[in-house]
Amino acid sequence: MPIDPNAMIEVTAFRWVPEGPRGLVKDLRVRWALEEVGLDYRVRLIGAERPAGYLQDQPFNQVPCLRDDKIQIFESGAILQYIAERSDKLLPGDPQRRYRAIQWTYAALSSVEPFVQFRALLNSFWADQEWAEAAKPTFDNFARLRLQQLSDRLGEQQWLDGDAFTIGDLIMVTVLRIADRSRQLADFPNLAAYVKRGEARPAFQQALSDQLAVYREHEPQGEAA
Amino acid sequence: MPIDPNAMIEVTAFRWVPEGPRGLVKDLRVRWALEEVGLDYRVRLIGAERPAGYLQDQPFNQVPCLRDDKIQIFESGAILQYIAERSDKLLPGDPQRRYRAIQWTYAALSSVEPFVQFRALLNSFWADQEWAEAAKPTFDNFARLRLQQLSDRLGEQQWLDGDAFTIGDLIMVTVLRIADRSRQLADFPNLAAYVKRGEARPAFQQALSDQLAVYREHEPQGEAA
Repeated sequence: MPIDPNAMIEVTAFRWVPEGPRGLVKDLRVRWALEEVGLDYRVRLIGAERPAGYLQDQPFNQVPCLRDDKIQIFESGAILQYIAERSDKLLPGDPQRRYRAIQWTYAALSSVEPFVQFRALLNSFWADQEWAEAAKPTFDNFARLRLQQLSDRLGEQQWLDGDAFTIGDLIMVTVLRIADRSRQLADFPNLAAYVKRGEARPAFQQALSDQLAVYREHEPQGEAA
Repeated sequence: MPIDPNAMIEVTAFRWVPEGPRGLVKDLRVRWALEEVGLDYRVRLIGAERPAGYLQDQPFNQVPCLRDDKIQIFESGAILQYIAERSDKLLPGDPQRRYRAIQWTYAALSSVEPFVQFRALLNSFWADQEWAEAAKPTFDNFARLRLQQLSDRLGEQQWLDGDAFTIGDLIMVTVLRIADRSRQLADFPNLAAYVKRGEARPAFQQALSDQLAVYREHEPQGEAA
């Protein structure tokens, strides 16, 4: 368990979030990667009221940020590249395999996530909007097309580039968990199984458990179970 | 002008696209980066009917792909990292500046592009959808928030990390050109000026000119000007 208040690496996370987004907040990606490579980290908790100057750390007012003695960055894709390059895991040394892993991080964040995320919003954050119901078929088609294409590419492989789990898989699994949560994977059993393989990794289990423990610890008074 | 039919690097591009997306198709990013670093490339043109096996090259059926004697990848973000690492331009050597440049590529593709792209679609591809008009305020607010945050961060700087133009700027400028085309930058003069600075670079001019020349050359009969 690499959480250590004296660790050099600091990761920003939310102190508390409501039930809906639990397990999907993006510091999970960074926690998971740090567990995979075995790097200690400490957590900087922030609330709905961001600390003064937070936009300097993260101009879009989101989590996660990472800082250590050398760098301070945001965007989970960039953070994962940094973490992977500090170890011999998650990012192969061979150029072709290295850039394929990086390629899959962009594919997850840019070619898949927006489509499944917007589709998911129609059932959650946007569910009460008058236009939401009518927009569903359009967003459904977009999301299903990308998921079908990804499903075809993955086929029966264990991971996106074969047998080696990389930062590309790590981000893709977290993106597909958004889709899974809003029942978009029902017709894609190989993607659902891929998500389960990712979630079964001890590093994922530890990262998720640590993320959720923080929310339980900071449950608002009167709302605790 | 580094287009050379015998070049080692091959970039995939569309043979022809209608007026609407001209200048926004994503092989522009790769052409621009190759011009910036001065690497020769050849172009592999594909049409609406993709060649057999194309999904093996690009599982989402899009452009661009890049291949050379060492690697074959898709996703413009990954391709730009590869190009930048083959030169001493576009990606600084200092770790903090290097990862900030990489961070901005992810920010452009994941924290900005989806919001301005979906907003733009409401005026173009989705303009006839019955729900489009009612959805505009929601998508407008999302896109405007991200543009405002980006505008605040950029301030009066020349580029996102100060004076050095990086792959982060290159991708961000192409993302903001989507916003600019659909008039989303009217209230953000510093972002509009940032786009103009990017477009004024000789490498951009050459890349755009080469991309558009292909479409003119393959104009369908009877539709040429």
